[in-house]
Amino acid sequence: MIRVGIYGGRGYVARELARLIAVHPDAELAWWHSREAGTVEDVHRNLLGTQLQFIAGEGTPDADVVFLCTPVGVAMEVAPDLLRRGSKVVSMAADFRITDRSVFESIYGPHRSWELQKMAVYGIPELHRDAIRACDLVANPGCFSTAAILALAPLVQMPNVDADHLVVDGISGTSGAGATLDRSVHHPEMCSTVIPYNVVGHRHTYEMEEQLSLVARRSVCVHFTSHYGPFSRGILATCHAFADPLPTRDDLLDLYDAFYAEQPFVIVNRLSGSPQAAWHYESYPSVLDVASSNFCQIGMDVDPKRRRIVIFAAIDNMGKGACSAAVQNMNLMFRIDETAGISMRGLGI
Amino acid sequence: MIRVGIYGGRGYVARELARLIAVHPDAELAWWHSREAGTVEDVHRNLLGTQLQFIAGEGTPDADVVFLCTPVGVAMEVAPDLLRRGSKVVSMAADFRITDRSVFESIYGPHRSWELQKMAVYGIPELHRDAIRACDLVANPGCFSTAAILALAPLVQMPNVDADHLVVDGISGTSGAGATLDRSVHHPEMCSTVIPYNVVGHRHTYEMEEQLSLVARRSVCVHFTSHYGPFSRGILATCHAFADPLPTRDDLLDLYDAFYAEQPFVIVNRLSGSPQAAWHYESYPSVLDVASSNFCQIGMDVDPKRRRIVIFAAIDNMGKGACSAAVQNMNLMFRIDETAGISMRGLGI
Amino acid sequence: MIRVGIYGGRGYVARELARLIAVHPDAELAWWHSREAGTVEDVHRNLLGTQLQFIAGEGTPDADVVFLCTPVGVAMEVAPDLLRRGSKVVSMAADFRITDRSVFESIYGPHRSWELQKMAVYGIPELHRDAIRACDLVANPGCFSTAAILALAPLVQMPNVDADHLVVDGISGTSGAGATLDRSVHHPEMCSTVIPYNVVGHRHTYEMEEQLSLVARRSVCVHFTSHYGPFSRGILATCHAFADPLPTRDDLLDLYDAFYAEQPFVIVNRLSGSPQAAWHYESYPSVLDVASSNFCQIGMDVDPKRRRIVIFAAIDNMGKGACSAAVQNMNLMFRIDETAGISMRGLGI
Amino acid sequence: MIRVGIYGGRGYVARELARLIAVHPDAELAWWHSREAGTVEDVHRNLLGTQLQFIAGEGTPDADVVFLCTPVGVAMEVAPDLLRRGSKVVSMAADFRITDRSVFESIYGPHRSWELQKMAVYGIPELHRDAIRACDLVANPGCFSTAAILALAPLVQMPNVDADHLVVDGISGTSGAGATLDRSVHHPEMCSTVIPYNVVGHRHTYEMEEQLSLVARRSVCVHFTSHYGPFSRGILATCHAFADPLPTRDDLLDLYDAFYAEQPFVIVNRLSGSPQAAWHYESYPSVLDVASSNFCQIGMDVDPKRRRIVIFAAIDNMGKGACSAAVQNMNLMFRIDETAGISMRGLGI
Repeated sequence: MIRVGIYGGRGYVARELARLIAVHPDAELAWWHSREAGTVEDVHRNLLGTQLQFIAGEGTPDADVVFLCTPVGVAMEVAPDLLRRGSKVVSMAADFRITDRSVFESIYGPHRSWELQKMAVYGIPELHRDAIRACDLVANPGCFSTAAILALAPLVQMPNVDADHLVVDGISGTSGAGATLDRSVHHPEMCSTVIPYNVVGHRHTYEMEEQLSLVARRSVCVHFTSHYGPFSRGILATCHAFADPLPTRDDLLDLYDAFYAEQPFVIVNRLSGSPQAAWHYESYPSVLDVASSNFCQIGMDVDPKRRRIVIFAAIDNMGKGACSAAVQNMNLMFRIDETAGISMRGLGI
Repeated sequence: MIRVGIYGGRGYVARELARLIAVHPDAELAWWHSREAGTVEDVHRNLLGTQLQFIAGEGTPDADVVFLCTPVGVAMEVAPDLLRRGSKVVSMAADFRITDRSVFESIYGPHRSWELQKMAVYGIPELHRDAIRACDLVANPGCFSTAAILALAPLVQMPNVDADHLVVDGISGTSGAGATLDRSVHHPEMCSTVIPYNVVGHRHTYEMEEQLSLVARRSVCVHFTSHYGPFSRGILATCHAFADPLPTRDDLLDLYDAFYAEQPFVIVNRLSGSPQAAWHYESYPSVLDVASSNFCQIGMDVDPKRRRIVIFAAIDNMGKGACSAAVQNMNLMFRIDETAGISMRGLGI
Repeated sequence: MIRVGIYGGRGYVARELARLIAVHPDAELAWWHSREAGTVEDVHRNLLGTQLQFIAGEGTPDADVVFLCTPVGVAMEVAPDLLRRGSKVVSMAADFRITDRSVFESIYGPHRSWELQKMAVYGIPELHRDAIRACDLVANPGCFSTAAILALAPLVQMPNVDADHLVVDGISGTSGAGATLDRSVHHPEMCSTVIPYNVVGHRHTYEMEEQLSLVARRSVCVHFTSHYGPFSRGILATCHAFADPLPTRDDLLDLYDAFYAEQPFVIVNRLSGSPQAAWHYESYPSVLDVASSNFCQIGMDVDPKRRRIVIFAAIDNMGKGACSAAVQNMNLMFRIDETAGISMRGLGI
Repeated sequence: MIRVGIYGGRGYVARELARLIAVHPDAELAWWHSREAGTVEDVHRNLLGTQLQFIAGEGTPDADVVFLCTPVGVAMEVAPDLLRRGSKVVSMAADFRITDRSVFESIYGPHRSWELQKMAVYGIPELHRDAIRACDLVANPGCFSTAAILALAPLVQMPNVDADHLVVDGISGTSGAGATLDRSVHHPEMCSTVIPYNVVGHRHTYEMEEQLSLVARRSVCVHFTSHYGPFSRGILATCHAFADPLPTRDDLLDLYDAFYAEQPFVIVNRLSGSPQAAWHYESYPSVLDVASSNFCQIGMDVDPKRRRIVIFAAIDNMGKGACSAAVQNMNLMFRIDETAGISMRGLGI
């Protein structure tokens, strides 16, 4: 059994990781560290009756892998010691996601362990599986980043796609806002609405651009805007691209099928929909179909009249966008079945 | 008192119009026509206890104005007689929205009273107030069309804006899907999700392009994609544009303030937001703030790094996107206070 | 025009009152007092563009009526001076709702102007219309109280109803929790759930018992439990009673119709529903049908097998449960049309 | 591996069972029978990419266990042959839930294989574990029944509880309404509302009464009323009881802890809540904390003033209320780990 430590106790990422590890066939929770000791069920009521306790204080017991569920800036402090002591580390915040130091520091401020960043692997197995298998430190991606990267990675490989005008609208459930109370996600004001936020310059944009540029082998510019919608779990990324010549939908479906052929968690929607329906939606993903799962559903269409490509990716921001993706990375690092513990399909209802 | 007839009984547009007319200080419901006679409260339970009855059959009593709340194709059949008999007409469906016959017929099929289309005015007062005042037939706009047109009309006047790459993502509450049952809006599957639909070639796109091209005095291409979100009322249109040179946010705020200075229902959000907040949302509209109202809130931002403009417009799809807009048009046609009966602010909570 | 002062600036009750007064044909907002001066739209974004400003500091300008939108304890401090200066007062909190001082003080602590309480009238027009017309100080009821009292007032008049075992489950939208941030109504945790709270001894219970005992002319015990549901506006009160002999549903419908015959805002649902339906719901109220309105819909049923009566009342907790009810009370105090400014039907969708 | 057949293809119960079986460590889907052959992903889009096909026609292949996911009336037709062929059977509809034939037939009409009913075991392991282990035919309980029975079973054992006046209000997510389209669960009308339905005489009442009477060793009368709320998954049962003498909350907590001490999926909430909070909710269950799980959370309180007991039970109607409960029953019938495949905690967010 892989002995797992969770570092950071009160947030939703930690909560969801604990929920996943508890049913993982090959891993078990060794310890859960928080700023304050105490009873887990006082904070995470879905874990009522589990008898779990937070540990606190300086230092942590040994573990085979530690998930760092802390605000950006903490992982760069605690990861060096954990790695030295032989733990593998999955960093859930942004500390090790950006490979260009000047970009990182312009967004997040000074980096205090850049040498570690150089050994970190960006945790999207669909792009970096072998490197993840070989590494000790995974930089788990941002939730919107995962959605946009999975949506656009095959596309940006096409040289005829205009890489300067990729437009991505993302809408996330409010679990993405975390456990900290904020007026913007106070239920009476967030219920039955959609709000844009961090409309330009969202931090995840930089991850998208770095990773997509790698895939594209050229510089890619992502015009990303984020929204919260009135649900808790899930992200839909709606991605627009221009191309000349314009591929057909069938061309794209074949491209995506080939790109993701060996990927257990990415599903390309080839349904054609009902032509007689008042509206057409069957070809595109619904967030609920991947909620509470590690799956990504991708759908697409092409507008031959106005010459535009639209790619959709739906994930659970807490699942493939964070915690089950982290477990997938752990599985790879420990060379066990990549799908262990995270193969359940989305809620659907 | 303006005597109002509502033609079409069972849909949500008719329901909402009846609700608005009932409190209008200068109008009253004269009759409500449906395919079948019967008691209104059996169909519209928010009108329980009103004693209203549907009339049915061929022909309708006189009225000063008739709102045609019927599927596309019916208004073109019944409007001629109504106009001949001296009623003003507000057509709620698409029958008279498109001025280019070949475009109309490519989308909706043969038009059977095109001569009427030529006397119809597209019912966005912010663009056509004087013409609406002078006309007898208003083509009430599509819900997404209103949101996108109000969002982009000032912008497309700027010659430096790239009019070929306007990208609009719209998300609507499910009341936009109407009263007809459909799997896509069955509550267990629509709750807690977002779904794209009619992703390319949405019919409202053509209205947006025609109207924005008029304002821009050049041909405008709108890349529009629609979504349903898990709420009933409201639309958010997120509109992306590229420009060279790029204006600043302040430039745009001034442009929009000037454009909408005399418009009682369009509000430009100049709030700057809290720089200390974990995320920034105060400068942008929230759908709930205009729900159940005739108001449109507009917010915007500019990304100087990646050179993109984002404009948001939030409306209630049943309000400014349909029914209270139709009342606004009625008010103008009868030269009464434009805001009569529709000046209430959005729900907010 | 009635000059209205709103005292208390940042809460939802104040927000909603300002929204209602702005469209009232016979009233206008004279001033809005808050702890801090400032721009209203910074706090209430549905009022964006209104140019409203909060006033602050000791003392307030004159007004014909002042709505006190402050936590319990403040109204008893500020009402005396307002009344002395000739304003009528509507107290939105609990300060003057309870007529038994020992009961009040056991719940809320010491009362500091009990002599005022004695001149206050409990603001349910359906029970106290004449007294409200004649008074200067209205104690606007609690939201759950209004729902339960309207549901049960006719019933408790029946001597065969067991007045000791009235069981009321109330579910409220989260706007009832107010604008103060709290984990229990943080959107990610409140979305898609129902939570019980204040399960026994809810403060509104005492209002229900006092008012229903008055109507019943005997002591009534209400077993009330409150819940929050994943919506913002509305309350459903599900009220159970036992009776021997047991009336029929038709008996009850006649009783309720007679009791509420002259009441403009209480609607008794006599629909019989579709016997062929998989489930039967047409005879009972849906919260959405009264949302954003001053209406109360009442439905009922009788179980002849197990000998139980069920009465439902649906209201908008912010409307008939608070703000539009306060306007109804104002209308009565100023002897204008009781329905002025608040006659719009519920959203329905 | 247990070879599983699912009989009935298009409903939500079948969908959820397929989702659960796919990750069960000791079971696998052998076949999925539907009225029409076809591709599963056309109907269940959360299963996109699984390559599953429905089989159709008379007769079914062999299986170790068959889940009958069909409307009431079908299981009694097909179960005899399945049992004869050596399959174990879990009936998801009501066919075998009621032990009193006259009661069954008064609700559901003639029963066509009553001899089978006599060998069926009502599938609540917390009451009938040993019998389930020994049987070949499980009558899987109704969703509301499970919630109310788990809430009240310990209580009705107390002789001082009034067994004639148990009042239960249940609120379910709309997945309980199933996949058949209906106006009552059309998203625009179900969003942001609560509706009562089948208010008296709900079919699940009879199951509650039979099972609770068994536990109580006396006749128990349940006054049950059902509601739909604006979420998809989950049930909260709010159960009221009267007792003389009245136990304390601590008495009850001890009673429930003892009753459920050996039950892996029933969790009694002993949290005391924050006395300083504006409202008190920590001691009671939130539906979201058990959503997508097989857990039942139970909370309770006692009103010493008005002498009432309140017991809450929260489950996922599709989980512990239907499908994961069916898997738990399967695990028992095959004498494998009772928690296999269904031990994941609720969503929490």
